[in-house]
Amino acid sequence: MKEPGTNVVNAAIIGASGYSGAELLRILSTHPEVRIRRVTAASSAGQRVDALYPALAGQCDLEYEELLPEKLSDIDVAFLALPSGQAMNIVPELKAKVPRIIDLGGDFRLKSPALYEQYYKHPHTAASLLESAVYGLPEMNRKAVASATLVANPGCYATSVILALLPALEHGIARGQGIVINSLSGVSGAGRSASVEMSFAEINENVRAYKLLTHQHIPEIESVLGGAFGGALSVSFVPHLVPLTRGIYTTVHAQLATNVRASEVVTLYQQYYATHPFVRITNSIPQILSVRGTNYCDIALYVDQRTNQLIIISVIDNLVKGAAGQAIQNMNLMFALDETTGLR
Amino acid sequence: MKEPGTNVVNAAIIGASGYSGAELLRILSTHPEVRIRRVTAASSAGQRVDALYPALAGQCDLEYEELLPEKLSDIDVAFLALPSGQAMNIVPELKAKVPRIIDLGGDFRLKSPALYEQYYKHPHTAASLLESAVYGLPEMNRKAVASATLVANPGCYATSVILALLPALEHGIARGQGIVINSLSGVSGAGRSASVEMSFAEINENVRAYKLLTHQHIPEIESVLGGAFGGALSVSFVPHLVPLTRGIYTTVHAQLATNVRASEVVTLYQQYYATHPFVRITNSIPQILSVRGTNYCDIALYVDQRTNQLIIISVIDNLVKGAAGQAIQNMNLMFALDETTGLR
Amino acid sequence: MKEPGTNVVNAAIIGASGYSGAELLRILSTHPEVRIRRVTAASSAGQRVDALYPALAGQCDLEYEELLPEKLSDIDVAFLALPSGQAMNIVPELKAKVPRIIDLGGDFRLKSPALYEQYYKHPHTAASLLESAVYGLPEMNRKAVASATLVANPGCYATSVILALLPALEHGIARGQGIVINSLSGVSGAGRSASVEMSFAEINENVRAYKLLTHQHIPEIESVLGGAFGGALSVSFVPHLVPLTRGIYTTVHAQLATNVRASEVVTLYQQYYATHPFVRITNSIPQILSVRGTNYCDIALYVDQRTNQLIIISVIDNLVKGAAGQAIQNMNLMFALDETTGLR
Amino acid sequence: MKEPGTNVVNAAIIGASGYSGAELLRILSTHPEVRIRRVTAASSAGQRVDALYPALAGQCDLEYEELLPEKLSDIDVAFLALPSGQAMNIVPELKAKVPRIIDLGGDFRLKSPALYEQYYKHPHTAASLLESAVYGLPEMNRKAVASATLVANPGCYATSVILALLPALEHGIARGQGIVINSLSGVSGAGRSASVEMSFAEINENVRAYKLLTHQHIPEIESVLGGAFGGALSVSFVPHLVPLTRGIYTTVHAQLATNVRASEVVTLYQQYYATHPFVRITNSIPQILSVRGTNYCDIALYVDQRTNQLIIISVIDNLVKGAAGQAIQNMNLMFALDETTGLR
Repeated sequence: MKEPGTNVVNAAIIGASGYSGAELLRILSTHPEVRIRRVTAASSAGQRVDALYPALAGQCDLEYEELLPEKLSDIDVAFLALPSGQAMNIVPELKAKVPRIIDLGGDFRLKSPALYEQYYKHPHTAASLLESAVYGLPEMNRKAVASATLVANPGCYATSVILALLPALEHGIARGQGIVINSLSGVSGAGRSASVEMSFAEINENVRAYKLLTHQHIPEIESVLGGAFGGALSVSFVPHLVPLTRGIYTTVHAQLATNVRASEVVTLYQQYYATHPFVRITNSIPQILSVRGTNYCDIALYVDQRTNQLIIISVIDNLVKGAAGQAIQNMNLMFALDETTGLR
Repeated sequence: MKEPGTNVVNAAIIGASGYSGAELLRILSTHPEVRIRRVTAASSAGQRVDALYPALAGQCDLEYEELLPEKLSDIDVAFLALPSGQAMNIVPELKAKVPRIIDLGGDFRLKSPALYEQYYKHPHTAASLLESAVYGLPEMNRKAVASATLVANPGCYATSVILALLPALEHGIARGQGIVINSLSGVSGAGRSASVEMSFAEINENVRAYKLLTHQHIPEIESVLGGAFGGALSVSFVPHLVPLTRGIYTTVHAQLATNVRASEVVTLYQQYYATHPFVRITNSIPQILSVRGTNYCDIALYVDQRTNQLIIISVIDNLVKGAAGQAIQNMNLMFALDETTGLR
Repeated sequence: MKEPGTNVVNAAIIGASGYSGAELLRILSTHPEVRIRRVTAASSAGQRVDALYPALAGQCDLEYEELLPEKLSDIDVAFLALPSGQAMNIVPELKAKVPRIIDLGGDFRLKSPALYEQYYKHPHTAASLLESAVYGLPEMNRKAVASATLVANPGCYATSVILALLPALEHGIARGQGIVINSLSGVSGAGRSASVEMSFAEINENVRAYKLLTHQHIPEIESVLGGAFGGALSVSFVPHLVPLTRGIYTTVHAQLATNVRASEVVTLYQQYYATHPFVRITNSIPQILSVRGTNYCDIALYVDQRTNQLIIISVIDNLVKGAAGQAIQNMNLMFALDETTGLR
Repeated sequence: MKEPGTNVVNAAIIGASGYSGAELLRILSTHPEVRIRRVTAASSAGQRVDALYPALAGQCDLEYEELLPEKLSDIDVAFLALPSGQAMNIVPELKAKVPRIIDLGGDFRLKSPALYEQYYKHPHTAASLLESAVYGLPEMNRKAVASATLVANPGCYATSVILALLPALEHGIARGQGIVINSLSGVSGAGRSASVEMSFAEINENVRAYKLLTHQHIPEIESVLGGAFGGALSVSFVPHLVPLTRGIYTTVHAQLATNVRASEVVTLYQQYYATHPFVRITNSIPQILSVRGTNYCDIALYVDQRTNQLIIISVIDNLVKGAAGQAIQNMNLMFALDETTGLR
């Protein structure tokens, strides 16, 4: 690994003991322009990282610490990978110490404190920061991300849904009402925690939907896509747990707004994402194995003439493009590095 | 096991070497009123059943034979579990020998030979039998099944979809246009065959949609439900393969046609299926493990007020309620046995 | 289901909320000679059984209760499916109320309190009952089980190992020293509990050994087999967790004590188990799928001439022959029912 | 990626359509010192690599070709990833064109043509090359590999077993007779091919041993370790298929030859592998997830005082350290690159 120099980005990972934190460690430990300086995790403070994640033995020589903001003065960028609702309590203080913050959680993704409270079930404690936080979807906000001081990394489902719909909605191909979204997710999206529900015996040979009508990515999707669409937009979103560790498979049905052939939609999407290295428009039906462990989002497009619907399938690895990879892609933009550095 | 007597049903399984055939064997071998007399499988003729399925050692003492219709004169009922397109070639001759036939394949599910040819990609060779074949969904056609001589056992996806939508469409709660159906299936639905696509390494940690816009259960669903609905009906159906052996998880989105609360829909469904022992309306979100190995179909109902949609989730075991179990349920009706005999 | 009559066995399940308890419920709910009268589970008291196990909806109409021994006076048999160390605290009192007790845990499997304390890491509180408890392996102790008042149902690993070695050791074919046992287990053996270790993300695509040198089934295996062998016996036992829900796969290596051909060993085993309906000696290499959901133990035998070793493979379903099924087999013997009743 | 220069290693992959070939492509496509020039695969000639492996879209722009040795004159190193028995037919001709050959198959791993024929069931057609082929286990033969023109990359099981036993046998801690080896493998080791046996429905929720007494890695293990041991050595090896895609879990039991404590064995192993970056001696029990996707071999050591046995557990990813990764490690040595280049 490169020795730290004047140009090296000094990074801290706040909340590094969960799956997203571990994935940040895995990717950043081979990133040529980054040096991980500190990793914090309240529950594991004092423990070596490779004691918790033996896979990182020989790759990562760090120890978990308590979070002490005063120790972060030499940090260029802090990644926050905390349970929902914790980031908003520390970001105000952190912003005074660390020039760039990327929050992988949901605390700064919505602009409206009321919507936040409705879906997250508690009030927002740092609402004044919501407006200036930049929604870190590089394919949409590349420029704004580059100069942002606080980036709200998108939700995993939201990433797969927004990338799937953005071109069609911006170009008026799909209607904004009555969009139906079914997503299938691996279990790592739920984080690393002890519960009967997430035990192998309850997930293996099983499928179940959850958080029907109430999932917190619904307002995220509607507000972000509503902005691009330029009008009211409503989605019905059903997330399902399927027996795999990683990956999100999203199938979208939207009413066509114009008479268009599938090939025209494919061309539109190819052009739309031509300069975005991590979106691939595929000819064959996407599958999760094609993106496993990568930062790619694969998208395929179908027109159902019989029912006048546009069907869009998109797949990502929830821990990479849906979390740690996208965060690093944002970091690359923020430090004027090539967007793909460390992510191939 | 009960010794054969005058009232015992003598059964043959034609095409008993695949997963549906093996499931028929598994269930029928403990059915108190049935005696399996013959099992045929061209590819395995001469082999013992328990050589192919060691699980049946000690339970089933039969040997696979070639299919010779003249040897079936003492048979009361023949189950056909053949690859698509083979049943229609033997049913005409079989009908002369065997009083009751239950076909687990798709050959006799559609009434229209044209629709059959469009979706199955070859002409129907026994089209004159289509009209008299009874669609073997007991929850819909209990009476007709009882007296039928040729029963077309429903498709696995179609079973989960039709049971999910039947009450809502019959009672005018849901609109018939723009219904969106996403189904997730275990791999046993694809049958027992050698292919790279179905190998463990390609299914494990993977999800993929398939047969988008072209699946042969689309016309089956539309024609059966269209009859109940009393009007034109169109569905957009996307089947997905997920990494499990058994089970189908179906999520339906339909536009509400009336202003109705979720609790009213639940009550309607409970009443509709009150006399049907294998449909359970659940309070909690259904999961595949709850129906694994059983003949149950679990259904849950949700109203999305924001988007004015009825969301219905239904789950079955594709090899039981989606194939062998439903076939035996039909057989019970045909021989005036209690509908649940051998299926608890 | 048969109505309760004078001959019906009235059963209680103490600790019915775990996987073994649920499996007892599943099997007993279709057992023609048994009526489940009470199910207790401290943590779930007041909850309906089918709320915790939706699969049992329509099959089991019971509610979990607190354990109150005075309420068990009408009970013929109590199954105990409790966490390790709990049965010994209640069995003394229970024995005064309930004529027959079958303990599925490890509390009464060892005769020596000292050995118990060494491996279970706490003293035995009902040591006076150890001597009279009958080790409930029907293939070994059929007669003693029939008249026992307290049966210690064998451990799941121990069942697979003892059935594998019993004939060879009794007949002096294998040496008692240096036996190597590697067992692979599905996760349901660890019970239904919340832990990161047993979460899907930590089990899927993973294998790990555990409790090396210290597993509590080591003294169980050594003492039971030592008795049959008639001499000191030592085994080295390594259990492994593999990503499946159910099943145990045991591979045993033992030094041959005599010059014997594989076919002779096979014949010996066939004769040894000829009157035992749940042991099958197989020609092909055993696999877990062949016994999944059944009470069978499949065994295959190999002689490695090059290394002079007898290799024995045995497979069971840990929740059936390794727990609930074997307990019911014992109950059948205790109530003079056919050994296989309710277990086909 | 680095542009090809005078120092770039020009590589060809012969037989690149299977899983080992694809893994070579995956790793080499980010290797900074290698340029993949040609990939051949008879069955897929004319097809783009990313049509067969969509995961490589955007990473690999090559097309499969027929193998034409005359087209390989600009190649520095050829990796052979062919079905068993094919490499020996082309290596004699290939050696005239390509200076360095690394065969990932089993054709050149044994020195004895007789042993080859006994275990591989057909005569060796290039027996004169066996003597000069270097067994490509870098931890054993680093120097010889560096100057070799033909490297026989070790078998996956053999790699895990030899690394586990090498120090103990070389240092006389373990006896050479009666070694018992149980290995568990993911299915990718069997290659990418169509078979019922390897279908998801037959592997999922299943375990089965295979090739008992006859596996071709037995003579490979015995001859390689026998050389290190300096005496006759015999192993009894039972490979098992478990439901995972990648990984090998090996548990070895060997009789201790000396009175030694576990901590001494650990120290010996740490010293033995101190200069070998891909072997990690672990404190905790190894697990497959720790090495998934990496070139590491994790090893843990236990002394069973009761039975006087040394128990060794080793884990690798069968496609990386067990195939493609080890081949690239060998290539690095052959071209005087750092051994870990491209493998972190």
